[in-house]
Amino acid sequence: MEEKRILLTVSYDGTAYCGWQFQENGPSIQAEIEKALEKAVGTFIRVTGASRTDAGVHALGQRCHFDTVSGIPAEKYPFVLNRYLPPDIRVTESMRVPPDFHARFDAAGKWYTYRIHNAPHPSALYRHLTAHVPVHLDEKKMDDCAKRLLGAHDFAAFAAAVGQAKTTVRTIDAVSVTRNGTEITFKIHGNGFLYNMVRIIAGTLIYVGQGKLEGDCISRAIDSGNRLDLGVTAPACGLELTRVEYAFEQEEEKP
Amino acid sequence: MEEKRILLTVSYDGTAYCGWQFQENGPSIQAEIEKALEKAVGTFIRVTGASRTDAGVHALGQRCHFDTVSGIPAEKYPFVLNRYLPPDIRVTESMRVPPDFHARFDAAGKWYTYRIHNAPHPSALYRHLTAHVPVHLDEKKMDDCAKRLLGAHDFAAFAAAVGQAKTTVRTIDAVSVTRNGTEITFKIHGNGFLYNMVRIIAGTLIYVGQGKLEGDCISRAIDSGNRLDLGVTAPACGLELTRVEYAFEQEEEKP
Repeated sequence: MEEKRILLTVSYDGTAYCGWQFQENGPSIQAEIEKALEKAVGTFIRVTGASRTDAGVHALGQRCHFDTVSGIPAEKYPFVLNRYLPPDIRVTESMRVPPDFHARFDAAGKWYTYRIHNAPHPSALYRHLTAHVPVHLDEKKMDDCAKRLLGAHDFAAFAAAVGQAKTTVRTIDAVSVTRNGTEITFKIHGNGFLYNMVRIIAGTLIYVGQGKLEGDCISRAIDSGNRLDLGVTAPACGLELTRVEYAFEQEEEKP
Repeated sequence: MEEKRILLTVSYDGTAYCGWQFQENGPSIQAEIEKALEKAVGTFIRVTGASRTDAGVHALGQRCHFDTVSGIPAEKYPFVLNRYLPPDIRVTESMRVPPDFHARFDAAGKWYTYRIHNAPHPSALYRHLTAHVPVHLDEKKMDDCAKRLLGAHDFAAFAAAVGQAKTTVRTIDAVSVTRNGTEITFKIHGNGFLYNMVRIIAGTLIYVGQGKLEGDCISRAIDSGNRLDLGVTAPACGLELTRVEYAFEQEEEKP
């Protein structure tokens, strides 16, 4: 039987999980998908994700690939796997890709979204999907500051110490901070992100929005490479991996 | 000690509750608020809600009133009660109102929002806050149809049989159906709603959006008074009581 490589798009509410990656001591998204896949095709298959999202981080469009000799048509996996997956994980798309395609190494761009509930009291309805900031935030200042990220820079200051990236240079080509009532949404697109980079940027923008840090702190941190020029890492629950893109898709419209 | 009547604004994720109203056989929002209030002021106090939302229905701005001789400043109840409430219920506002004010009988207007996840697979992230409709919906047709609700009409056809309203005439003065990607949002404002009315309208619009019912079905049902001219009652999880308004607030901006 011919072996096929399949690429999945996966959406999940990360609240109940210890993150994307398999861990001995807690439920992971990867393990849930591998269990569902085993039920669907009858054998254990290792799944490789595009991004190892942390505990509590959500995804609208995580991607992952696996190899199989199963006769299930490549585009039918959402229907097959959703039957076995818990309701906080949904496969939304599947397609066949070439045998040398790699979900992580071939990722050409990623969109992340960070959501802040900016009101005196936490949100009851979106408590798992937003970070709560009770102090009023100036979203215009945050947006101006975020624009300093644009371009190719050495983002060494923006990585958690445990990161193991070979280079800390990344290119950010779209970024915005907008407000809709009490909800502040920070969106960012780049060719790649260091470990905890988006949450460090979000935490920095939260500080800038309340006047705890100056608007030029991001430029300063890019120059200095010093993590201490930035704010604290914002909570995981506000973060969503919105989309992972590959070269064959980048002509399409961005979200 | 002087007795004061206090009006609360309450937001909740209705997923885990049997509805607003106290019931012997399950947890209710009302009972949770009464428990928190008892912890805060030391005595049991009955709370009267503006709207008895059903099991699974959410609220951004439910309102309720109660009487107390407590010395807690009228505007401090969110801080006091949120300490004792579960995270899926949040009090967001409180104020003193006249002793003859009534949260339900004085309600002058209500906003409801109904959310549909219109995609082949259910939403992992918003599974509790949306109704899933896999068939593609024509939101323009739905919006055109919804506009027939505008005005003062006898909505007898739009009520579940168990309703006990004295009159079935209501005035609807704003309604819209919009799409943002896979999310369809139906918003409606009126001076009052019959039992299950918004969910019956939402279910009817879902049928119209997929071509199962004609666009004039709403006008026909208003004329006929026949429930059978309309679609099925849409699921509770898509519905949110967005705001309850009183005469003293109606000069303010609507959401």
